[in-house]
Amino acid sequence: MFDYKAAFQTAVEQVRTEGRYRVFADLKRVQGRFPLATRRREDGSEQDVVVWCSNDYLGMGQHPSVLEAMKSAVDESGAGAGGTRNISGTTRSAVDLEAELASWHRKEAALLMTSGYVANEATLTALQRIMPGLIIFSDSLNHASMIAGIRNGGCERHVFLHNDLQHLETLLAAAPADSPKLIAFESVYSMDGDIADLKGTIALAKKYGAMTYLDEVHAVGLYGETGAGVAERDGVLDGIDIIECTLGKAIGVMGGYIAADAVIVDAVRSWAAGFIFTTSLPPALTAGALASVRHLKAHPELRAAHQERAETLKQRFAAAGIPVMPSESHIVPVFVGDPVHAKMISDMLLEDHGIYVQPINYPTVPKGTERLRFTPSPNHDDGMMDALVTAMDRLWTHCNVARMPRAA
Amino acid sequence: MFDYKAAFQTAVEQVRTEGRYRVFADLKRVQGRFPLATRRREDGSEQDVVVWCSNDYLGMGQHPSVLEAMKSAVDESGAGAGGTRNISGTTRSAVDLEAELASWHRKEAALLMTSGYVANEATLTALQRIMPGLIIFSDSLNHASMIAGIRNGGCERHVFLHNDLQHLETLLAAAPADSPKLIAFESVYSMDGDIADLKGTIALAKKYGAMTYLDEVHAVGLYGETGAGVAERDGVLDGIDIIECTLGKAIGVMGGYIAADAVIVDAVRSWAAGFIFTTSLPPALTAGALASVRHLKAHPELRAAHQERAETLKQRFAAAGIPVMPSESHIVPVFVGDPVHAKMISDMLLEDHGIYVQPINYPTVPKGTERLRFTPSPNHDDGMMDALVTAMDRLWTHCNVARMPRAA
Ligand SMILES: Cc1ncc(COP(=O)(O)O)c(C=O)c1O
Ligand SMILES: Cc1ncc(COP(=O)(O)O)c(C=O)c1O
Repeated sequence: MFDYKAAFQTAVEQVRTEGRYRVFADLKRVQGRFPLATRRREDGSEQDVVVWCSNDYLGMGQHPSVLEAMKSAVDESGAGAGGTRNISGTTRSAVDLEAELASWHRKEAALLMTSGYVANEATLTALQRIMPGLIIFSDSLNHASMIAGIRNGGCERHVFLHNDLQHLETLLAAAPADSPKLIAFESVYSMDGDIADLKGTIALAKKYGAMTYLDEVHAVGLYGETGAGVAERDGVLDGIDIIECTLGKAIGVMGGYIAADAVIVDAVRSWAAGFIFTTSLPPALTAGALASVRHLKAHPELRAAHQERAETLKQRFAAAGIPVMPSESHIVPVFVGDPVHAKMISDMLLEDHGIYVQPINYPTVPKGTERLRFTPSPNHDDGMMDALVTAMDRLWTHCNVARMPRAA
Repeated sequence: MFDYKAAFQTAVEQVRTEGRYRVFADLKRVQGRFPLATRRREDGSEQDVVVWCSNDYLGMGQHPSVLEAMKSAVDESGAGAGGTRNISGTTRSAVDLEAELASWHRKEAALLMTSGYVANEATLTALQRIMPGLIIFSDSLNHASMIAGIRNGGCERHVFLHNDLQHLETLLAAAPADSPKLIAFESVYSMDGDIADLKGTIALAKKYGAMTYLDEVHAVGLYGETGAGVAERDGVLDGIDIIECTLGKAIGVMGGYIAADAVIVDAVRSWAAGFIFTTSLPPALTAGALASVRHLKAHPELRAAHQERAETLKQRFAAAGIPVMPSESHIVPVFVGDPVHAKMISDMLLEDHGIYVQPINYPTVPKGTERLRFTPSPNHDDGMMDALVTAMDRLWTHCNVARMPRAA
């Protein structure tokens, strides 16, 4: 008979051996004091920490208008939605939020899902059922949720080298002219911080008759005049057929959605198992997200402050010879190049300096490119930055990690 | 070039032709007055309705302790979790909730996921990666999320006739004795209301060296002395290797989880993409669910009241000759047998009687078994039941739908 326990132990052992076994830090976010949090150690003792790796990029997760909207929704409509969208789960604020999101992205319609992961997985799988024979062209660094959706549909797929339009064109040109085609890519790649060439990709899509599917999970709220993302910033909202986003990062809550032409949304709504067969988002989440989106639309100065903080941190790391990786966005990755070092530095930052940043190891990034990934927000002040740069400088010496030539 | 618009239109048309195009009722749950809700019609006018198809089975979605816990969590920890479990998303109440859930199901560990759908999909896919060569035996009426997880892993699978242990045994006996095997099934099947034979299934699992995977989504909170589900009621918690549940139905919030031996949970935690690469549940949801579970554990009288309501409604329908289908659980399905009739009756109940219940059509149930599905809660009082039975009686005559012989 099969030895189940051994199989599970082996699976866990393998993850340990690959250096990707994870112990989750037990944190209590302290509302009103973000990016501060309280960490509970395994022995039960507590420690104040500054979180430097949150995806609550703008601190909207503690914005009074968001919190008020959530609490009012709890008072007015209760805890959960009580069912799937079809079985009594279509709450008022979900309908209102979809209208707001559609107009934000200048699309006819939007569809809420449980998360960004589910939005990608469910939509990409459904598109393959809606368009049999679909060929998907997928950027090599696409997120796990896009990969899952593409694979689960089982269609023909071609992976193009990251942000390499020449390679993409070669693949598009080789596919039959009359087949349905979809180019799936992200705007901001969250581990490197680089940004895709939207205009170039759209031009290729037009030339070869492909649809475009853009994940703006790490851009929504952060780029463009009203925060609708890089497609807004670059003035190409019309050229993107399906935009996919999360409510869980800059918007500060949880959930995901797509925005597109009404007929596309209607088809996905009718075909996507991951949308149909699951409980809807609670009124508190849709109401909180609605308040957040309205605030983000009206406050470009938040985006300016966010970019300033990221730029400043990059410069300060560079000045200290800390090897900050080239990034065109708000993501500040620092190269370590070794999983053990990355983990050790992260542990010491936490234990000795009260600075919380996760090491990013394989398989999230390729082996040999292990890194720390900082996400400064408008709430990270100069004092916190001083403490961070000083601590990093000390650890870089202590751990004898490679430095960049110091800027003059 | 491919005509995308036509493809999406055709996909929507197909759904219409199959009678499964859905228009979601726009409802506002009114906290404190459940099962009452306000419906917004397409023309903007409003109507009070009694919801008879909610999966908030016990009305916990409006329980003061749940709402207070949610609001306190918003005040203390803010809106969202701010990241994945690994990247700053492990909040205190998530850790506490996992401990509470594990002890509820008398397992060593539990793991929270975004939803019950995600818990099924992610876990069942991951198990196939953890145990290469796994053969899954799946009940023919398993939920879409289990089917998705089983298919997405790509392993060998065998579907056994619904609740048919003889057929299951034939399939188990035919598989190689030393292969890893998993029997995936549900306790309460939510469209028919029948309950699986847990003891019999566990005995077969033991005999053929298979693991058991049980979806208690429609049973958790509702069965067993402390509400841990049918496995508790039947005294077989030990015989189930992996229990999967939702926080979105009887618990009244949103989210999902598995509970199992620590090593199983650790392996799934390390291998399941749908767990790893997604934003964690907001503190408000984990805190609300924690309060709900604690309340449910301590209040068996809620479960008694729930069963009484379901039993009473079944009897009253039967007495009126309304063809209530045999159900061993709190689900009260009424047979219609035709998708057009089912939709028409549902529309008339809503518009003329302020009674909201969704028609259940193909593909959710087989063609020719279309039905209405009622889920009475302890909050549905006798007056509401009078109104429902009277309206149904009238509509049955009006629409000339088949009756059962009236009970004497
Ligand atoms: C590029 C990208 N897409 C999608 C997701 C999933 O979004 P969510 O966290 O809302 O599930 C993430 C991260 O979590 C991501 O980085
Ligand atoms: C049997 C079963 N399993 C899983 C799910 C999914 O749970 P959730 O709504 O939390 O995604 C459902 C219904 O939604 C269900 O009926």
